[in-house]
Amino acid sequence: MSAAILSVGDELMLGQTQDTNAKWLASRFAQHGVLVGEIRIVLDDVVATESAIRELAARYDIIVMTGGLGPTEDDLTREALRRAMDVSEPLEVDPQALADLDRWFLDRGRPMTVNNKVQALRPKGASCLKNVLGTAPGLFANIGAARIWCLPGPPREMEPMFDAQVAVHLPTVAMSTAAVHSFGQGESFLAQQLGSLMLRDRNPLIGTTASGSIVSARIRGVQDAAKAESMERAMQEIEKLWAPYAYGRDQETLAGALGKLLISRSERLSLAESCTGGLAGSLVTAQSGSSEWFAGGAITYANGAKMDLLHVPHDLLSQHGAVSAPVALAMARGCAALLKTEWAASITGIAGPNGGSESKPVGEVFIGICGPRFEAVRRFHYPGDRASIRDRSAKTALALVRFAILGQDAFAAPFIWEWSK
Amino acid sequence: MSAAILSVGDELMLGQTQDTNAKWLASRFAQHGVLVGEIRIVLDDVVATESAIRELAARYDIIVMTGGLGPTEDDLTREALRRAMDVSEPLEVDPQALADLDRWFLDRGRPMTVNNKVQALRPKGASCLKNVLGTAPGLFANIGAARIWCLPGPPREMEPMFDAQVAVHLPTVAMSTAAVHSFGQGESFLAQQLGSLMLRDRNPLIGTTASGSIVSARIRGVQDAAKAESMERAMQEIEKLWAPYAYGRDQETLAGALGKLLISRSERLSLAESCTGGLAGSLVTAQSGSSEWFAGGAITYANGAKMDLLHVPHDLLSQHGAVSAPVALAMARGCAALLKTEWAASITGIAGPNGGSESKPVGEVFIGICGPRFEAVRRFHYPGDRASIRDRSAKTALALVRFAILGQDAFAAPFIWEWSK
Repeated sequence: MSAAILSVGDELMLGQTQDTNAKWLASRFAQHGVLVGEIRIVLDDVVATESAIRELAARYDIIVMTGGLGPTEDDLTREALRRAMDVSEPLEVDPQALADLDRWFLDRGRPMTVNNKVQALRPKGASCLKNVLGTAPGLFANIGAARIWCLPGPPREMEPMFDAQVAVHLPTVAMSTAAVHSFGQGESFLAQQLGSLMLRDRNPLIGTTASGSIVSARIRGVQDAAKAESMERAMQEIEKLWAPYAYGRDQETLAGALGKLLISRSERLSLAESCTGGLAGSLVTAQSGSSEWFAGGAITYANGAKMDLLHVPHDLLSQHGAVSAPVALAMARGCAALLKTEWAASITGIAGPNGGSESKPVGEVFIGICGPRFEAVRRFHYPGDRASIRDRSAKTALALVRFAILGQDAFAAPFIWEWSK
Repeated sequence: MSAAILSVGDELMLGQTQDTNAKWLASRFAQHGVLVGEIRIVLDDVVATESAIRELAARYDIIVMTGGLGPTEDDLTREALRRAMDVSEPLEVDPQALADLDRWFLDRGRPMTVNNKVQALRPKGASCLKNVLGTAPGLFANIGAARIWCLPGPPREMEPMFDAQVAVHLPTVAMSTAAVHSFGQGESFLAQQLGSLMLRDRNPLIGTTASGSIVSARIRGVQDAAKAESMERAMQEIEKLWAPYAYGRDQETLAGALGKLLISRSERLSLAESCTGGLAGSLVTAQSGSSEWFAGGAITYANGAKMDLLHVPHDLLSQHGAVSAPVALAMARGCAALLKTEWAASITGIAGPNGGSESKPVGEVFIGICGPRFEAVRRFHYPGDRASIRDRSAKTALALVRFAILGQDAFAAPFIWEWSK
């Protein structure tokens, strides 16, 4: 079975938006053992879209297309599909799709616009696919031997529609994939640790990827009982080689892994954030059930807030500055006391692009950790822009609490960023 | 001038890596007034790559290709280009490229491997492009009327090579693009407001996109003095039609727009977050310079934190529950007092997937706003998963402060989500 992916949208061709749908779909196809042969992206242009559909339909068994199903003038997938199907009649209303649209607006107490009605149209001979999360139904059609599914562009509508309505037509002999995630070391160092595990003729096959300073080992193999065991063995081996940096598998997050540890000890965490301004708390509370182990935190962006909320002494701030080890420690202590938690972490630094100086450059961040019989402050110097400095700061704070609980002297380990005691 | 982008790599087709090069290149082309007609991604396969080069060369004036120039077995761009050029002789060594490679390894005191020597090969009739940041030289060739540049895959090598060696061949008459962003209404409603502005034969051309509940109008036109004026006129027209939901242009964010308003009034904001757990603060502090208008906030995830930090009365919590209008109001008031700010917003709700009940379902969120001579609490019921409920809650809190400052009765406007007084 051969497959291609077609994405439609001016915003993708103008470089305004990243086409994340194609990547997601390619990964889903891979899980079903189908290697995508081609990904194409075209403009919101009916001729370009029609010709791409025709060419791909002549070459591939399956085409999944996303975008261009919205209610507006520049949503041209319905019309392009009609032309590629050589249907001469104009688009026709799908009664079920129209009824579903009516109900959608009725349920929400909103009037349906004329534009929205357009979404119930389809070429003669095509069928509509139910979309329970949005107003745009999908489309399915045969062109020659090829089967074509058109799905809406928004990922939260597209993804469940693919899983429920397209994936069922893919082979069930599945390729299984798994991942082990780590934080705190660079990709080349971690790849070196894996050694011969990364050889290209192995099954399961293991590779590494890095994203947002999380380095993951990705494992894939053809699935059968024997292979399932070797997948498990490979994961355990990676976790051993990557200790203490490996924190979880598959969908697990750094915050989730920390939460598990805290729950097992019936302890709770609080956070005092300056330059991250709530980002660490946001990572924690993105986890459902985090109320079990997270009490809350203080976003103390201004110096006044550091004094008023966390009782950081004024003298400390004027003597050392807000971005300093003593202030980080006082923030963590104040936070643990304020929120009555066993553990607290604090983050204060210069995220840039402004506010740096020779003695305190952009990227300098102090992270304080305060726990039962344990206190520490570490200084980091992160490269990159404001977003990446903030992201790494927030994740490092969570990682350091995890290391402290594990009793790992990970401060002494060769951390990927500079620090000093 | 027409252009296409071709990316090569198995990792892109397995969904393991996002093709960020194509987006970057598309955006660069757009800046030069060249609209990319097609983006294609193919496997590390010499036949597939050759045929993609042939097809694109027959249709476009310029093709920029990335990837497949490394030193290993699966780097096949050199060979694919030779075939597409109909060159029968084997690849030949480029003396200058080989000398550059020699120097690269000499400078680093490392021996050059046999593999690396392969990188100095090129098809007869093609030329090599200098790469000062890596070992892979680029390639340039003519196929018929088309010009083809092959650049290495790593962005930090590819990007400067494009700017120095490809962009100089692009027109200096630029296409200009712009965007107007809005929050608080659905895409179909907003598109309807635009009416004839969205016709596909207009110049500048206007389309809408939605991402993370931000709906944007994207505008593009060929740039000259007259058109620059019509771009500006189009943006102003959109902003008028989308008032009060339109908050900014181009790179501007909702938080940034709110910040501008607050700075102009010398007022500051603080945030009290329960279910968003720091996400709203994180959106605010993602803005450089937000310390001018943002004091900080309280992440009061646990009830204890609501009482300890924000002095929410225990009675209120036990009588109405943490997710209620009275508690939201008390949180906002407590926050403004604690952080001594003119404005405060509070967020308390059920982000799910657990914790919902019949009377307080998942997605129910109360947002409180407290400002000079102004107080309000609104109840929202958001659809979607935990991430999207949290995202909309955080953005709504910022939007409601903005509406309140503007004196817009946007509470009474047909907000996209349910609410009641």
